[in-house]
Amino acid sequence: MPERLSEVVDPANWTCPAPLRDQGVVVMGHGGGGALSAELMEQIFTPAYGNATLAGLADSAVLELGGARLAFSTDSYVVRPLFFPGGCLGDLAVNGTVNDLAMSGAVPAYLSAAFVLEEGVQLSVVERIARSMGAAAEAAGVTIATGDTKVVESGHGDGVYVTTAGVGLVPAGVDVRPQRARPGDAVIVSGPIGLHGVAIMSVREGLEFGVEVASDTAPLAGLVAEMLAVTPDVHVLRDPTRGGLGASLNEIARASGTGVRLQERAIPVPDAVANACGFLGLDPLYVANEGRLVAFVPPSEAEEVLAAMRAHPQGAGATLIGECVAEHPGMVVVATGLGGTRVVDLPLGEQLPRIC
Amino acid sequence: MPERLSEVVDPANWTCPAPLRDQGVVVMGHGGGGALSAELMEQIFTPAYGNATLAGLADSAVLELGGARLAFSTDSYVVRPLFFPGGCLGDLAVNGTVNDLAMSGAVPAYLSAAFVLEEGVQLSVVERIARSMGAAAEAAGVTIATGDTKVVESGHGDGVYVTTAGVGLVPAGVDVRPQRARPGDAVIVSGPIGLHGVAIMSVREGLEFGVEVASDTAPLAGLVAEMLAVTPDVHVLRDPTRGGLGASLNEIARASGTGVRLQERAIPVPDAVANACGFLGLDPLYVANEGRLVAFVPPSEAEEVLAAMRAHPQGAGATLIGECVAEHPGMVVVATGLGGTRVVDLPLGEQLPRIC
Repeated sequence: MPERLSEVVDPANWTCPAPLRDQGVVVMGHGGGGALSAELMEQIFTPAYGNATLAGLADSAVLELGGARLAFSTDSYVVRPLFFPGGCLGDLAVNGTVNDLAMSGAVPAYLSAAFVLEEGVQLSVVERIARSMGAAAEAAGVTIATGDTKVVESGHGDGVYVTTAGVGLVPAGVDVRPQRARPGDAVIVSGPIGLHGVAIMSVREGLEFGVEVASDTAPLAGLVAEMLAVTPDVHVLRDPTRGGLGASLNEIARASGTGVRLQERAIPVPDAVANACGFLGLDPLYVANEGRLVAFVPPSEAEEVLAAMRAHPQGAGATLIGECVAEHPGMVVVATGLGGTRVVDLPLGEQLPRIC
Repeated sequence: MPERLSEVVDPANWTCPAPLRDQGVVVMGHGGGGALSAELMEQIFTPAYGNATLAGLADSAVLELGGARLAFSTDSYVVRPLFFPGGCLGDLAVNGTVNDLAMSGAVPAYLSAAFVLEEGVQLSVVERIARSMGAAAEAAGVTIATGDTKVVESGHGDGVYVTTAGVGLVPAGVDVRPQRARPGDAVIVSGPIGLHGVAIMSVREGLEFGVEVASDTAPLAGLVAEMLAVTPDVHVLRDPTRGGLGASLNEIARASGTGVRLQERAIPVPDAVANACGFLGLDPLYVANEGRLVAFVPPSEAEEVLAAMRAHPQGAGATLIGECVAEHPGMVVVATGLGGTRVVDLPLGEQLPRIC
């Protein structure tokens, strides 16, 4: 499978780059949440849809409708395997959309759920996934209000794909989006990173890392509500899923035109994640999370926000990991333990395909 | 491929029927919008999600959020082939969700679009579909506000699947839902039926029926607005997609506990559709439409609503095809040209898989 765009580009185009659409085919990295995904968005979807809303780069769109300020978001879930330590496709699909809404500061309210089923899949599998969605919705305080089911022939799907969309209400005075990062902002992560990606990897590759690592999939709307209760002036929220913390921070740096400087020793990487990443040659900063958020908050509010996060079950491991800076705009760097710095670039794609 | 549930049921269960989930596997009919789809909903999804909203059986859910009354709907689109006479997966995915919202009387406002792409599909194909979505959104007056893209390995998809969700605003005083059908209501169809299904069949099977038949895919929100301008008291609206007019009318009859009596000679079936159906042994009443609606309106308003529909491009062929009756509740019958009647039952699945 080609991993770099250059591998799928017609050599005839090399001296005079043509637009992406003339150059080739879809590769796995186009779904990875990194540079290739961004290219697809910028070169194909945004021009095709002809509007600026999509260009906001946030996890959900914030819209006015009937006097209400709504967040609206969607994600398709194609994770393999369907069931993994700590969760399954079902709760992942609910928590993922709940979290995308929460990352706009919204209170998630209603979800839709559309299934694409492959002919021949056991109905008991569909039921397990649907029940997991129902339980996750209840835990997150949202209602699955509408849905759809399509079936494709055996060999044209992969058991079950689920697409959720969601709507939520953005409270008055809340304006959370990547463009609002400001030099001086404290950069806080809500807990240990890398657990979802390593959990998927462990079952997919049949690897064991000493202790079983479970996915962190969880709804984050309750945690966000606690943070906004401290101050509605939270600048940015993001759940670092595909592409991990590295991709999310790069997107925020680019959207806001600021730089991000992290302290390597402050980043909470569980031993099992560190060991697995060491073994597999991966960087924990690029490994997917499904129950973590990264927040940019004004420095004056950082201590109080951190305290509120730590008092919430989903934020018990909340940690200050760095700050937003005026230097190197659009770039993320890590101060290493040895006193040097290294650049954390936007990944091309996801290290592990079909992580969510 | 098994077409009836009985064919996939373990014979050991025959004397003591077990719930659907214990009985077998997903078959194509589970995605067909007929009895098997309803069984999946009633036995698996509704209990799993644990709420009554889904049980409404409407094309979209109507919800209160932030003081606004919203319609919210989703559909996945897996149509094959991706491009067909009159449209493609892209405009189908936009018009389909726009129409589901309109069938609640809502003014559609915002859509989401989530792609599941198969590795190796040409980017030019993705772009054609996205542009078609953009054009359809503009024509329907909606904005594609948020989206997602996932990629699956070659052999685990079928080029492109798109899931759209949408939100719209339900005007004050409007309450359009299947439960509101009342004996005496006029049953009106907005134009000739069967064109989408026959168009897909013609290209998929390589058949020709004398003249090229084009899909009727079109947005219906503008037509609905004209109807509601005559009277906000339109009782039911439905776009007869999968399962055709036959499935839609059965759902309305069951939801409202009324009967429906159609006049066979009044139903507008184009010659090309009649010929194709005769050739293939299909009933036009079960063939999918993607730009038609069926309406139940109080008899006193029927003439004026019909006139308003005929003045709109999407309703130029609007016709009174029957009435809602107190007899045979839950059942749809057709008075034939010979003076007899025949029952139009809920189909088990869709005659043609992957029609949308």
